[in-house]
Amino acid sequence: MILDKVNYPKDLKELNIKEKKQLAEELRQEILNVVSKNGGHLASNLGVVELTIALYSILDLPKDKVIWDVGHQSYVHKLLTGRKDKFNTLRKFNGLAGFTRVDESIYDAFDTGHSSTSISAALGMARARDILGTNEKVVAIIGDGALTGGMAMEALNDAGISKTNLIVILNDNGMSISPNTGGMSRFLSRLRTKKGYIESNNKIRNLVIKTPIIGKGIYKGVTRIKNGIKSLFISNMYFESIGFKYLGPVNGHNIEDLEKIFKRAMNIEGPILIHVITKKGKGYKFAEENPNKYHGVSSFDLEKGVETKDKYDYSRVMGEKLLSLAKKDKKIVAITAAMEEGTGLVEFCNKYPNRFFDVEIAEQHALTMAAGMAAAGLKPVIPIYSSFLQRGYDQLVHDIALQKLPVVICVDRAGVVGNDGETHQGVLDLSYLNTIPNMNVMAPKDFEELRMMLEFAVNLGKPIAIRYPRGGESNYKFNKHNTISYGKAELLKKGEHITIVAIGKMVSYAMQVAELLEKDNISVEVVNARFSKPFDKGMIRKSIEKTNFLVTMEDNDIHGGFGESLDSELNYTCKTLNLGYPDEFIKHGTVAEIEKKYGLDVNSIYEYIKKEYNSVK
Amino acid sequence: MILDKVNYPKDLKELNIKEKKQLAEELRQEILNVVSKNGGHLASNLGVVELTIALYSILDLPKDKVIWDVGHQSYVHKLLTGRKDKFNTLRKFNGLAGFTRVDESIYDAFDTGHSSTSISAALGMARARDILGTNEKVVAIIGDGALTGGMAMEALNDAGISKTNLIVILNDNGMSISPNTGGMSRFLSRLRTKKGYIESNNKIRNLVIKTPIIGKGIYKGVTRIKNGIKSLFISNMYFESIGFKYLGPVNGHNIEDLEKIFKRAMNIEGPILIHVITKKGKGYKFAEENPNKYHGVSSFDLEKGVETKDKYDYSRVMGEKLLSLAKKDKKIVAITAAMEEGTGLVEFCNKYPNRFFDVEIAEQHALTMAAGMAAAGLKPVIPIYSSFLQRGYDQLVHDIALQKLPVVICVDRAGVVGNDGETHQGVLDLSYLNTIPNMNVMAPKDFEELRMMLEFAVNLGKPIAIRYPRGGESNYKFNKHNTISYGKAELLKKGEHITIVAIGKMVSYAMQVAELLEKDNISVEVVNARFSKPFDKGMIRKSIEKTNFLVTMEDNDIHGGFGESLDSELNYTCKTLNLGYPDEFIKHGTVAEIEKKYGLDVNSIYEYIKKEYNSVK
Repeated sequence: MILDKVNYPKDLKELNIKEKKQLAEELRQEILNVVSKNGGHLASNLGVVELTIALYSILDLPKDKVIWDVGHQSYVHKLLTGRKDKFNTLRKFNGLAGFTRVDESIYDAFDTGHSSTSISAALGMARARDILGTNEKVVAIIGDGALTGGMAMEALNDAGISKTNLIVILNDNGMSISPNTGGMSRFLSRLRTKKGYIESNNKIRNLVIKTPIIGKGIYKGVTRIKNGIKSLFISNMYFESIGFKYLGPVNGHNIEDLEKIFKRAMNIEGPILIHVITKKGKGYKFAEENPNKYHGVSSFDLEKGVETKDKYDYSRVMGEKLLSLAKKDKKIVAITAAMEEGTGLVEFCNKYPNRFFDVEIAEQHALTMAAGMAAAGLKPVIPIYSSFLQRGYDQLVHDIALQKLPVVICVDRAGVVGNDGETHQGVLDLSYLNTIPNMNVMAPKDFEELRMMLEFAVNLGKPIAIRYPRGGESNYKFNKHNTISYGKAELLKKGEHITIVAIGKMVSYAMQVAELLEKDNISVEVVNARFSKPFDKGMIRKSIEKTNFLVTMEDNDIHGGFGESLDSELNYTCKTLNLGYPDEFIKHGTVAEIEKKYGLDVNSIYEYIKKEYNSVK
Repeated sequence: MILDKVNYPKDLKELNIKEKKQLAEELRQEILNVVSKNGGHLASNLGVVELTIALYSILDLPKDKVIWDVGHQSYVHKLLTGRKDKFNTLRKFNGLAGFTRVDESIYDAFDTGHSSTSISAALGMARARDILGTNEKVVAIIGDGALTGGMAMEALNDAGISKTNLIVILNDNGMSISPNTGGMSRFLSRLRTKKGYIESNNKIRNLVIKTPIIGKGIYKGVTRIKNGIKSLFISNMYFESIGFKYLGPVNGHNIEDLEKIFKRAMNIEGPILIHVITKKGKGYKFAEENPNKYHGVSSFDLEKGVETKDKYDYSRVMGEKLLSLAKKDKKIVAITAAMEEGTGLVEFCNKYPNRFFDVEIAEQHALTMAAGMAAAGLKPVIPIYSSFLQRGYDQLVHDIALQKLPVVICVDRAGVVGNDGETHQGVLDLSYLNTIPNMNVMAPKDFEELRMMLEFAVNLGKPIAIRYPRGGESNYKFNKHNTISYGKAELLKKGEHITIVAIGKMVSYAMQVAELLEKDNISVEVVNARFSKPFDKGMIRKSIEKTNFLVTMEDNDIHGGFGESLDSELNYTCKTLNLGYPDEFIKHGTVAEIEKKYGLDVNSIYEYIKKEYNSVK
C-alpha cells in the first residue's frame, strides 16, 4: 500500500508518477469503504482524487493555503493531511467533520459548508499576504455549480482587478450543463476529447479566441444552453476579460498534466484561473453513471450500490401536498435554488415544468423573484434549507415582508440536521424570521399538520414561513388535527401544574414528557403553538395563569427564538424555562446524539422539568 | 407650462417632441426646486428625465410594469404618475417617499431601496404574466453600479435562459468607471461620442462583434479597467452570450432616439437589454460637474450649489479614529462596499490606498473577504450601513462567527435614519446580530465612546460589531468615560427606585429621563449597557435586585433585541418595560418626528415610565 507511506503532503514529493497513480486508486478505495459505511459525499470526492494529489505535490503545505469551496469534496484532502487514521470516524459524533474545519487541522485554511465563498476568502488571504509581506500561495477550488452564486461573481469581479497572486481552480465536472445543448457545451466537449490538450494549450487558446464559433456562433448557440453565465464562465473569454489569466482546460484525472499546469501557474503573476475537467464519481461505476444519486449518500452496499429507499420524510410530504394543491390552483408555482431533489420537488417539476423554476445556487434571486411573482398575482412556494435561507435574509425583509407579499417559504432542514454539522444546522431561523415585521411563522407537529399548514399558507395572502425538520416524523402518533386558524395554538392536553408550550417537532417530545410527569403526579397542560409568529397569546396566557409554571420547547437557538419572544410579549411573571439550543455552533453527530448532548431528548427534558418543578413547589 | 397639462403617462401621448423637450426642462426645474428645499437624491433623477418621458410615452401604464432599481431615481416617475401636487412633500413625514412604494401609487410596481433587486422582481412578474396569460410589458431599469451586486448577476443568469419577454434598461451613467482606464472604456466613449448612433445601431452592433478591439484588444485592455465585470457588462458581448438581445447604446437624453429604441424593443421576443447612456446631474451645472456630491443632498441654495459643511458625525469620528489606529497598527485594513464617503473612509483611502478595499456593491463578498483577511492575520474593519449589512447575514454567521474571526463590523446608520424611510432604517441589527453565536455587539453613548470602542474592538481578537446612528451625538454631554472592559456595562448614575439599562444613543435619553424623574422624587439608576452581547449580567442583576423595576431602552426593534435577550437571560421576575421600536416597518420623517410617533423621545419616555411606576408603586 502506497497510502501506508503517505501521511502528509510532503510524503507525496517522494513518490513517482506510477506510485501516485496507485495512490489515487487506494484513496478511492478508502473513500468508498468509509463513505459506504458512514454515509457522506461520494461522487464529488471521487472526482478530485488526482487533482488533490497533483496540487499537493506542488504546493508547500500547510504554509500555502487551499480553500475548498463548499468543502464536501475535502475527503482526499483530509486523508493526505494527517487524518488517515481517524478517517473511519468521518461525520460521526466527535469524529472528523464532513467539511473543512480550522479547528480540526492546520491544513484546513478556512471553514466551508455553504456554496460560493472560496474566492472571497482566498482573495482576503492573498491580500493579507501582500500586506504582511509573506509569500505563501493561495488557492481556491470551486465547482462550476458554485460559480453561479452571486457572491462568487462578486468575488471574481474584485479579484480580477486585484493584481494579487491568486489561483482559482475551476473544478468543472460539467454536471450542470445539459448534455445535448448549444454551442458552448459542444465546443467544450470538443476541447475535452482532444488528446493532449495541455501541451497544445496555447494553440487552443488561440483557437478559442479566433475560432468563428466564439465570434458569432457562440452568441447564438449559447442562448439555448440552460445556464448562460455558467457557460460563459467556462471559457477563457470571460475570465480574461475580467482580468484573470486563464490556463486550461486540463484533464483532471491526469496527474502529470495537472502537475505541469500547476507548476506553470505558480510562476505567473496576478490572478489565474485553471480550468480542470473532472468526472464526478470517477472510478466507481455506479457513481459515474448516476453522479447525482451519489452526491450525498447514506450507508450502502459497495457491491450493489445505493438502493433506492422509499423514504417518507417531511420534504416528500411537502412535495406531494404541494402537487395536489397545484392541481386545483393554477396560481401556485414552485421555486428552488438548485435543491429540486432535496426539497421534494422532482414530481412537481415533472408534472408542471412551466410552473417550476430552478434558479441554480441563487437564494437571493429566488426570493426576490418570488416577491415579483406574488406582486403579479401568483402564489409562489419556495422550499429552501434553513441554513441556506440565511443567504436571503435581506430579500425576506426588503422584498417580501415590506410589501406583505404572499410568498410561502418552506423552511426545510430546520432544527438540528445531524451529520453535516455546524454549517448546515437550521437553528437560527425562528430567531431571524420572528424579528421580521409582517412575517408569519409556523411549524407543524407531524406530517399531517404540515399538509394542513401548507394548504393554509398558500391561501393566507401574507408572507409566511413553515419550518420543518430533516427526516421523518416522530414515533409519537397524534390522533387530533384541529383546523388551522391564523395565530391560534392547539390545546393538546389539559393539566394543572405546568404549561408546556412546544412548537414543531418538539410537540411530540412535550407529549411524551407530559406522560412521564403525570406518573409523578405532576399534571401538565400541553399547547402545540403552531404559530411562532403571531403566537396565541390568549391561550397561553390563560394556561399559565392557571399553572404559574411555563416551559417553552423549540429546536432552535434560545436566543431570539420562540420562547424568548413569548416571554417578552406575554410579560407575565411566573417560573419560566425556555428549552432550546444554546448560543453556540452545534457540531455534527446523529440528531439523537446532539439532542442528548444538549439535554433536549425526552428523558433529559423530563428530568430537568421535574427537578425545576420540585425546586419551586 | 407643459407640466400643468401632464398628470399621468397617458397625457404624454398628446405631446409633440418639442413639448416633450420643454417638459423635460420643467421637470428638471421642479426637481431642483423641491430637492433643494427638502433634500433628496438629485443627480440620478436629473439623469433620467428624458429616459422616463420617452419610456412612459411608449408604455401603457399602469398596466405595464416598471421597476426602478434602488428607486432613488423615481422622482420623474412620481411627477408623471399623479403625484405632482404632493411632490413638495417629498421625503417629509406623512409625505411622498423618496423611493417607489406600492402603497403610495398604483404606478409603483414594486418597493425598492436596496440595490440590485429589479431584475429578479421583473423576471418574477414576467413569468407570472406568462402563467396568468396577460400581456403587460415588464421593464427593469438598473444602473451600471447596481449591476455589480451578486443578486443582479444571479437574476441576469436566470433571465437570460427564460425566453420570457422582459426588458432590462441599463442606465449607464459611466460614473463608476475611471475615465482614464483601459480598452473597454475607451471603446465605449468612442461609441458614446459617435453622432446618431441609434440610426446606425445595427452597424455598431456589427462593429462591436467584428472590430478587432473586441477580438483581442479588449482582453488585454480590460484588465486595466477598475471594474472588470462591469466593463464586460457594458457590451453586447456579455449580454448576448447569456441569452439577452442587446439594443444600443443610445443617447439617454435624446427623447426621439429613446422612443425609437423602446418601440423597437416592444416588438422583439425574449429578454432584451437596452443600453442607455445618461449623464448624472444632467441640466444642473454643479451636479454635472460633481455628480457624486449631488447624489444625495440636504437642502441647499440653487444659485450657490451645495456648500461643503464641516459636519462632524459618527461616520467621521469612526473614520478619524480608524486612521489614527491604522497609523500605529499596520495590520488594520478597511473595506467598503461602495460607501467610501458615507462611512467616513475617504481619508483612510487617501492615506493608505494599499490597505483600503472598495469591493463595489458586494456586501456578501466584502464580509467573507474580511474573514479571509482575518484568518490570515490582518485586522479588517468594515463600516457598513445597518440595513445593507442584512445582505451579508449568512456571511456573518457562516464565514465570520463560526470561525471566531476577528473582523470588526462598524454598523453605521443603525437605528432610525430619517427621511430615507423603511428600506433604510437600521432597526433590526441588534436582533439579528445578538442571535449569532460567537458574535460580540457594542453601541457607544457618544463620539468619545465610539473612539474607545473602536480601539477596543480592533484589539479584541474576536468577531465584533459596533453599531452607531446616522448623524451627530446628542446634546447631552457625558463627562465620564470609563475604560471599556469586555462584557462590562458602565454605571452612570446611582438610584433606588428604577433601573434604566440603555444602549447606544438611548443612553443620553436615559440620563435626561432620569433627571426628569428625579424631580418627581423617583430615584433612577442608569446603566450604560455598552455591550448588547455579551451584556453585563452582574451589574444589571444587582441593580434590579435593588429597584425591582427594570426599563430597557434601545433604538432597535424590540423583537429579539437587546431588551428581550436581557429579560430572557436574566430570567428575573420584576416589573419590566422594554422600550424600542415595534414590530413594523418605520416610514420616513425626521428622526425627531419618528421618535415622537413611537413614544421614544425623552418626554414620551419620561411620561410613560412615570405612569407605569406609579401604577405599581
